[in-house]
Amino acid sequence: MDLDTKYIKIINYLLKKIRGSTFPNPGVFALIVESDKKFISNRIVSFGFTQFTGRPHAEAVAISGARFFANKIYTLYSSLEPCCHQGRGESCVKKILKSKVNRVVFSIKDPDQRVNGKGMSILKKNGLEVKYNILSDEIKKTYRGYIYNRTIQRPQVTLKVGCSIDSKIAMKRGQQDFITNKLVKKIVHNYRAEYDAILVGGNTINIDNPKLNCRIKGLEYLSPYRIVLSKSLDFDSNSEILKKRNQKLTIIFTLESSKRKKEKIKDKCFKLISLNKQNFTLSNILNELAKFGICNLLIEGGSKIFTSFLNEDLVDQIIIFRSNSFIGSKGQDLLTKNYKSKQKSFFQSSFCIVRDNTMEVLERKE
Amino acid sequence: MDLDTKYIKIINYLLKKIRGSTFPNPGVFALIVESDKKFISNRIVSFGFTQFTGRPHAEAVAISGARFFANKIYTLYSSLEPCCHQGRGESCVKKILKSKVNRVVFSIKDPDQRVNGKGMSILKKNGLEVKYNILSDEIKKTYRGYIYNRTIQRPQVTLKVGCSIDSKIAMKRGQQDFITNKLVKKIVHNYRAEYDAILVGGNTINIDNPKLNCRIKGLEYLSPYRIVLSKSLDFDSNSEILKKRNQKLTIIFTLESSKRKKEKIKDKCFKLISLNKQNFTLSNILNELAKFGICNLLIEGGSKIFTSFLNEDLVDQIIIFRSNSFIGSKGQDLLTKNYKSKQKSFFQSSFCIVRDNTMEVLERKE
Repeated sequence: MDLDTKYIKIINYLLKKIRGSTFPNPGVFALIVESDKKFISNRIVSFGFTQFTGRPHAEAVAISGARFFANKIYTLYSSLEPCCHQGRGESCVKKILKSKVNRVVFSIKDPDQRVNGKGMSILKKNGLEVKYNILSDEIKKTYRGYIYNRTIQRPQVTLKVGCSIDSKIAMKRGQQDFITNKLVKKIVHNYRAEYDAILVGGNTINIDNPKLNCRIKGLEYLSPYRIVLSKSLDFDSNSEILKKRNQKLTIIFTLESSKRKKEKIKDKCFKLISLNKQNFTLSNILNELAKFGICNLLIEGGSKIFTSFLNEDLVDQIIIFRSNSFIGSKGQDLLTKNYKSKQKSFFQSSFCIVRDNTMEVLERKE
Repeated sequence: MDLDTKYIKIINYLLKKIRGSTFPNPGVFALIVESDKKFISNRIVSFGFTQFTGRPHAEAVAISGARFFANKIYTLYSSLEPCCHQGRGESCVKKILKSKVNRVVFSIKDPDQRVNGKGMSILKKNGLEVKYNILSDEIKKTYRGYIYNRTIQRPQVTLKVGCSIDSKIAMKRGQQDFITNKLVKKIVHNYRAEYDAILVGGNTINIDNPKLNCRIKGLEYLSPYRIVLSKSLDFDSNSEILKKRNQKLTIIFTLESSKRKKEKIKDKCFKLISLNKQNFTLSNILNELAKFGICNLLIEGGSKIFTSFLNEDLVDQIIIFRSNSFIGSKGQDLLTKNYKSKQKSFFQSSFCIVRDNTMEVLERKE
């Protein structure tokens, strides 16, 4: 493996560690490597990653942590093309040009139209050596949500399902109960920390009254946005979702136009989006969520919501946690009778044993 | 690892290769190892395994293939205690005593009451060194069907399920269709060769009209017994199951007493067992099958049969093949509404990817 691939590989590994902490910015990891003129001796002298809530950027952190010496070559490695647009501060390209960095090697072009090749060409024009498209297939997987957000204007959609061996998601229709084990619950909370937002249907609010936050000690601040699809806004105003937990935004999509109903749940932590019947479609809703910067969306049910997302072919990934026992046909089905197409197929990308349960990840076939 | 464990380990590995070919005898693997007086130089000089339909036995084959020299020690290794009862020929114990074998090392005592320690004590009385209980936990797994047959008088029961991601076993109730892929079909045929018998319900005969034989080229002769539970004998007399395929026995359990109905399907390859209502229970039926020498029984459906076996806690193993797409709640459930207990639990013992499908093996928690 050549040197550049080696460092991008390290970056790809580290990138997974900051998942979910950089919203609304994409998580980026950068390394600065010091080499002699012949690239015989090389060492990492600094690193940086996108900080909480997106600032400062990875490249800025890496540069500020490095000491530059004469007679050495400095390569800045990054998972993503450095930004060239003024955001909440000086752009990374400007910072690189001010530093002693000689080479910039990144994995993929930034799909954001404000950068998308422009960062690269400014660096080149200023005499820096630039290389990219390294391990890009792997890195693209990590950035899939961000790429979708910037190119097809919707988040990456992951269904999370907890069920019995025979795929029942509850004992009886509408009855809350715990099918999977405690370790699965912890894993789910960990996923919540890694996702930008969780979406559920209004029924789920009424039946399960979920908090939809991350309750792992120390990671509560990574709780995601909470999204509810409620056509008629008929849920209890004491619902957990309406409490100002973690001060994270809750976005409620509704068809309801009654001012009285709306007033009842209005609050600064809530965004109520009224759509008319024609616009109350999943693709419009996903498009709205993309505008909020949401790149990775976790759907936590129930069966009506699962079925709708699958029917509209808007599911990229499915995570299935299965228990170690059966429920039988009295239990509630994973999908409703309205599930349409049997053509959509997935492939199993990973499987593991979670104590006496299992976890399976399915990916949509491209 | 000591020498004896090493050879029993080899035997345990080889044992899996002869699964299903030794009916009605248990499959046994034997090795003869030649050693110097100090066990410094040791080599396998002969091996044998139970031949097709059970004769000759492994030990007899191994002895007949060995050349014995003076000044050497010969150890006969076997997975199972050598038999001491007259069967379709001289017992293995007699054959060993006539040979130059000095030591006999086997993994587990034969659970068959005609042997069960007796073989061992005859060998000891005749001055041979005898060792046993080596790797017995592993070997017992391989012999589980045989042990169940001889101790609790029923075969080991394995459910085989082919289903969609959401555990539907057919598109619609009673509609035959292929959910899993072609490679899964081949694996199932391979399992059929390894099992002594396949059991289905009468409904499955009417709906799917299955052949229930092994159709892998070259392995057709390993097709299992076919067992049908049909309370009213109301299946089509042109059913595939009633054809004399492979000349293997088909056993039909029924409540029906009408001579006319019985005559219609009578044939030398069929055994019709009439039970009265009180005796038509799964445990009685399994007991009857054990009497036929059946140690390993594969249940191929449908949902009524699956549910009954689970309800009566008679399932030792479940093999689930899952496709890569959903069917939705219009499809047929794996279990019926009569599924009773949610207490029974299983653990995942293995999982693998079968092209775009998956295969999962669940074992009953002891």
